[in-house]
Amino acid sequence: MANDRIVIDVMGGDHAPDVVLDGVALVCNPESELHVDPSRLILVGDETVTREGLRTRACTSSVAVQHAAEVIGMDEKPGVALRAKPGASIPIGVGCVRAGEAGAFISMGNTGAVVGAATLGLGTLEGIRRPGIAITTHMTGRPVTILDMGANVVPKPAHLLHYALMGSTLASDVDGIESPRVGLLNIGEESSKGTDLLRAAHELLTESPLNFVGNVEAGEIFGEDVDVVVTDGFTGNVFLKTLEGLSAFMLTQVTEQLDAHQAGWGGEVLADLRHHVDYSEYGGALLLGVNGVVIIGHGRSDERAVANAIRQAARALDVDVNADIVRALAPKTS
Amino acid sequence: MANDRIVIDVMGGDHAPDVVLDGVALVCNPESELHVDPSRLILVGDETVTREGLRTRACTSSVAVQHAAEVIGMDEKPGVALRAKPGASIPIGVGCVRAGEAGAFISMGNTGAVVGAATLGLGTLEGIRRPGIAITTHMTGRPVTILDMGANVVPKPAHLLHYALMGSTLASDVDGIESPRVGLLNIGEESSKGTDLLRAAHELLTESPLNFVGNVEAGEIFGEDVDVVVTDGFTGNVFLKTLEGLSAFMLTQVTEQLDAHQAGWGGEVLADLRHHVDYSEYGGALLLGVNGVVIIGHGRSDERAVANAIRQAARALDVDVNADIVRALAPKTS
Repeated sequence: MANDRIVIDVMGGDHAPDVVLDGVALVCNPESELHVDPSRLILVGDETVTREGLRTRACTSSVAVQHAAEVIGMDEKPGVALRAKPGASIPIGVGCVRAGEAGAFISMGNTGAVVGAATLGLGTLEGIRRPGIAITTHMTGRPVTILDMGANVVPKPAHLLHYALMGSTLASDVDGIESPRVGLLNIGEESSKGTDLLRAAHELLTESPLNFVGNVEAGEIFGEDVDVVVTDGFTGNVFLKTLEGLSAFMLTQVTEQLDAHQAGWGGEVLADLRHHVDYSEYGGALLLGVNGVVIIGHGRSDERAVANAIRQAARALDVDVNADIVRALAPKTS
Repeated sequence: MANDRIVIDVMGGDHAPDVVLDGVALVCNPESELHVDPSRLILVGDETVTREGLRTRACTSSVAVQHAAEVIGMDEKPGVALRAKPGASIPIGVGCVRAGEAGAFISMGNTGAVVGAATLGLGTLEGIRRPGIAITTHMTGRPVTILDMGANVVPKPAHLLHYALMGSTLASDVDGIESPRVGLLNIGEESSKGTDLLRAAHELLTESPLNFVGNVEAGEIFGEDVDVVVTDGFTGNVFLKTLEGLSAFMLTQVTEQLDAHQAGWGGEVLADLRHHVDYSEYGGALLLGVNGVVIIGHGRSDERAVANAIRQAARALDVDVNADIVRALAPKTS
């Protein structure tokens, strides 16, 4: 079936196209632990550059290439760029999914442009009004999914309910968590805490069939008591930036102090921790709620992060998360 | 003058009254680097317990004691507790400031009760509509002040302008920063980013005489480019809980990995870093905007944190932050 194919934006990200092509070469290698069947891949970008890149990486066999004449830069305004550049790799790649030539699209490029192109181009899943961006962190050694990370800055209560349902389906389908515990990010446990939005969402979640454990505070994300955390896109984005900024800062500090004690210790002792706190080790962010699997990798992704995003797309297609989301949303007929 | 005196809630905090009394004893010790003139202190709490605690700590000389028959617990609902217990240490302590017997009040107790009692009991400074909670972190080795941390969950644009002005005055008066750089916490640099609240606040800040550097993302708080960060109380509280949760989690992880390499290394190498990331080393949170200096210490404060909060109160009184805030707010007559 055409739908198990994965479109990859070769031109997106801070180190494109090289790092993206390196990641593709990594999954194409049958010896790699990150191997994915190359015939599932469609690369979108400048055709000459892409084919040459595949050739120099000895990876020409069965990877398809789709030409895109333009590129949307990381700092371009999404709406303006999408109107001005219909031939860019992001809209062309989304178009492949829309046309049924593939089931998934991956880009390390401009987040706003990917969200815009995917939302408009693919439409939302039956019953979903607004897509949300989910990340799954493995910081504490087990998966915790958090959404929305910035697609929907001022959501309505029903959107948060849908995020809970989508996050729960993802945690169950992809991470194998039975009846995932869903929490609502708030500044206190009591249902009366927070904003009008949160009080209304708390009520909807309490009435839902989800395993809703109530309000959770941000610190609990680093604990053991919650599998899915739901929040608005503004708060989620601040949380994510705090996570990235603080963990990078602390790792730098610890490395410096260790190296001051004994040269070389920093890198050696902290390798495991670096691996854990780096969520790109586990793929990119998933744009949940659109008609297709859409993954937004970090702009700073290295080849391993690209390869992990490709594997994440393959997994989401194989378990068919979207079908389960639609099933969970459908009115019950008993 | 009576106004340089500091009232301390002996009954507030997870380890009250012992840890609070230990902190008082620490500042009373003339040999301590954290010394504060004991005649400036008024302890509020159960009189027998407090006097006995001072006696066993050989610290009886000139510390005043004000009896309070009741205690508001950490988990009590603030509004209910304040109505039910007018004789509790928090309202009695705030009453001392209101009556002009002291200029500052410190509690490690129930944050909501302190905010409620201080706002109602002391009133707001001329021109300020809503108080805000400020913390100053020294994580990166230099002070960054962030507010509001949860007093005002759904602020108006003018409140954020006032937080900027109060935070800027604090950074200038207490930390000696000339023309502090003020940033608005947002999810992107452009002035169009975020919510209606943030767009309106961005406009007010741009027109203000403050050194407004525009929107900042959460990660920039760990950088070098901003001295004061303004946000709503919901986002601020999520940021603070993320900071506490993640830094505690990472320190535990790093310590475990170090100790796995060589027993005892964890504690030794990380002492400096622990010191830096622990904002209680620099005092408590300051409730800015009320008629008086009000400091809310962390419930888990140890004796050093209590002592630092007392010194912080003394410093805020000595430099008279509130007078400078009122001056900065007053209509210019030229």
